Amino acid sequence: MEIDYQKRVYTTDVSAFEGKEVMICGWVHKIRSLGGINFIILRDKKGIIQVVADASLKEKLKNLTLESVIVVWGRVKKEPRAVGGFEIESKKIDIISLARADLPIEINKNDIPANLDVVLDHRTISLRNLKQRFIFEIQSEIAYIFREFFRKNGFIEIFPPAIVFGGTEGGAELFKVEYYKKKAYLAQSPQFYKQIMVGVYEKVFAINKAFRAELHDTSRHLSEFTSLDIEMGFIRNEKDLIQIHFEFLKYLLDFLKAKYQKIFEEFNFVFPNLPLEPPIISLKEALSIIEKEYGKKALKDDLSAEDERLLGEYFSKIGKGDFIFIIDWPASKRPMYAMPHPENSKLTLSFDLLVRGLETTTGGQRIHNYDIQVNKIKERGLNPKDFDFYLEIFKYGMPPHGGFAIGLERLTMQILGLKNIREATLFPRDIQRLIP
Amino acid sequence: MEIDYQKRVYTTDVSAFEGKEVMICGWVHKIRSLGGINFIILRDKKGIIQVVADASLKEKLKNLTLESVIVVWGRVKKEPRAVGGFEIESKKIDIISLARADLPIEINKNDIPANLDVVLDHRTISLRNLKQRFIFEIQSEIAYIFREFFRKNGFIEIFPPAIVFGGTEGGAELFKVEYYKKKAYLAQSPQFYKQIMVGVYEKVFAINKAFRAELHDTSRHLSEFTSLDIEMGFIRNEKDLIQIHFEFLKYLLDFLKAKYQKIFEEFNFVFPNLPLEPPIISLKEALSIIEKEYGKKALKDDLSAEDERLLGEYFSKIGKGDFIFIIDWPASKRPMYAMPHPENSKLTLSFDLLVRGLETTTGGQRIHNYDIQVNKIKERGLNPKDFDFYLEIFKYGMPPHGGFAIGLERLTMQILGLKNIREATLFPRDIQRLIP
Repeated sequence: MEIDYQKRVYTTDVSAFEGKEVMICGWVHKIRSLGGINFIILRDKKGIIQVVADASLKEKLKNLTLESVIVVWGRVKKEPRAVGGFEIESKKIDIISLARADLPIEINKNDIPANLDVVLDHRTISLRNLKQRFIFEIQSEIAYIFREFFRKNGFIEIFPPAIVFGGTEGGAELFKVEYYKKKAYLAQSPQFYKQIMVGVYEKVFAINKAFRAELHDTSRHLSEFTSLDIEMGFIRNEKDLIQIHFEFLKYLLDFLKAKYQKIFEEFNFVFPNLPLEPPIISLKEALSIIEKEYGKKALKDDLSAEDERLLGEYFSKIGKGDFIFIIDWPASKRPMYAMPHPENSKLTLSFDLLVRGLETTTGGQRIHNYDIQVNKIKERGLNPKDFDFYLEIFKYGMPPHGGFAIGLERLTMQILGLKNIREATLFPRDIQRLIP
Repeated sequence: MEIDYQKRVYTTDVSAFEGKEVMICGWVHKIRSLGGINFIILRDKKGIIQVVADASLKEKLKNLTLESVIVVWGRVKKEPRAVGGFEIESKKIDIISLARADLPIEINKNDIPANLDVVLDHRTISLRNLKQRFIFEIQSEIAYIFREFFRKNGFIEIFPPAIVFGGTEGGAELFKVEYYKKKAYLAQSPQFYKQIMVGVYEKVFAINKAFRAELHDTSRHLSEFTSLDIEMGFIRNEKDLIQIHFEFLKYLLDFLKAKYQKIFEEFNFVFPNLPLEPPIISLKEALSIIEKEYGKKALKDDLSAEDERLLGEYFSKIGKGDFIFIIDWPASKRPMYAMPHPENSKLTLSFDLLVRGLETTTGGQRIHNYDIQVNKIKERGLNPKDFDFYLEIFKYGMPPHGGFAIGLERLTMQILGLKNIREATLFPRDIQRLIP
């Protein structure tokens, strides 16, 4: 007989059915046999519950394996010792999909007892682990809140192309695509397209893949990542961008805390601390902190990964929280479209955000004047002709504007305090890894 | 002096400031000179408004061009003859960005007087046209409602990879990527990944780019399109998918009608008609309608683009609306993961949706048994070894499941009744077009 799955009850919703018969379904998370009775912990999309299988089912369940998909009919009983406070007493269980007994990775404990490479090799199965899947539930919530927040603030979502004629920068780190008979690349960033769309909607956002041929295998870089992009017109300078970025972060953390505080604790995740006025410091100040506080010779005009980490540590230690905005970056370290600082043309009106000592966002005001932009392109030894369609917008009226891009995997990683960006990536792509 | 753009009022919000001074900003949409007075129609993200420039500004505005970005300070005055019923009497206007006088395309009328190729060549400017930008506002709303609807129904958003090791089908129509030293491709579909994630969350959705190396230049195909994907576990058959698809469409159209009815009329767009019970017919029935009603020799087991169009026309004519679900597709026309029909193994539990005579969605139940899936792969002359990671999920417990993929550009096109999919694509990619 066909099973009507629409009548199922989720594991976390059984309390409403105490004493009544319900149908639940899901995966066999754990099995324990005690005096001829089978105790099955069943996992579904919402949680887990204990099923006590009647002795009459002994034969049927004899070869039951972990991760098999089953349907359970049974009575809901209060049981304070069971997870969730309820269990199901069942006399009828159907095995929908019997799993093989050779599960390649142990997934039913809080942490998977295997190193990251093994976890990633068996990603298709390891994601079923409760903690693993929670990471990506949080990731989906971050994306949701990003859209909610910017939509509420009048931003319109756009879908920029992934296949592009060239880089926003010139050419390094681009993946080449065989595109019919043309030379084409995968977009490093939707930069040009979001600026174009400022001319149309003033305020836009996009969630899109960005691609970087990263030759270095680090714990912070991916070859393909998800970029949360915004761009907005009619700004005064980069401070307006920092302001709306802060408001987004506050909205996000308030939402996550209200909904997930308890689960964070269960998995030993700790929310980062966002004060009402996070530090906004110049790169120069940042470098001097590195030198003064850590006695380290800093770089001249950039931060190393270690410097970022130390800055995070420093501001956290002095009680200023886990978020630092760094401004006044030199033009030489920023793209050709970065707006020069009005008081020092060697600097730009741009910013980075460090979260727990890692850059998660880059942004800034952009040039909106045609002649200035053409000159900047030439200064970099690039040919303005290659940017014809992009430059067209500056010929025909662009307001002062700017934006930023947040790395979704990096933000997920730093909010949860993970050590490697691959832990915050469903199916990581890097110089080694293309599968699964 | 620095302009505080945060104090601006949008064109559509001025009614609340009647008789008061406001600051508005935007683009010069139209200019008219009448007896020494300049009438400027200003366009911002929300709409347009008439500005009456004081005679004292004559000199300053002498060279003002269309599409220049300006800031206007002035008094809000009721003026029934003006668009929106209000105008701004201004004595102070700043030109923020003076546009060149050689605007390549006329964008300030309802329809741009140019053919599609010219419109697309100047996409960066033509999108500023009010009707053009409305098309993509509707597109962004469709994506928004898609997420809202499926989120409310317990689906979790995932971010599947774009760079993949191979195709979901075998190899045709794939774009090759130079991925370090590996062979890699752009994803045709997130199919494998959304099935994997059913094993994790049961119900998932994704909005992602899909890539097809389409050698044919048609009005319905793109090389890169935006795919609205869902996949769900614990279904009975493809009818459960059709049901939730219908509910999504109803939710979407109700939302659009409530919010945009008036603007649809202004631009001569007409909503498609979704009856409470749209036709669900087998492919066989569809083919017999083509033969009987149109006296045309139909294909044996597929629908041509012309057949789709005729079916749309037929059901609309007999008052059954603009949406047709077509089921019972032959296995030979469906992918290797399509679930065979229990009563006829030559058929599958799959469906297409036609909207106004064009396929916008493909979906169906998938195989969830390891051995059956391996056999299907072999039957197609493919090597199961190439699908190792995908096959792993079937070894370790998968529920009955299925899903579908909606082409966002196609759905936008059909809801608005556009003629070419490029009209519903911000920056189309096809065999000819890679720029802008």
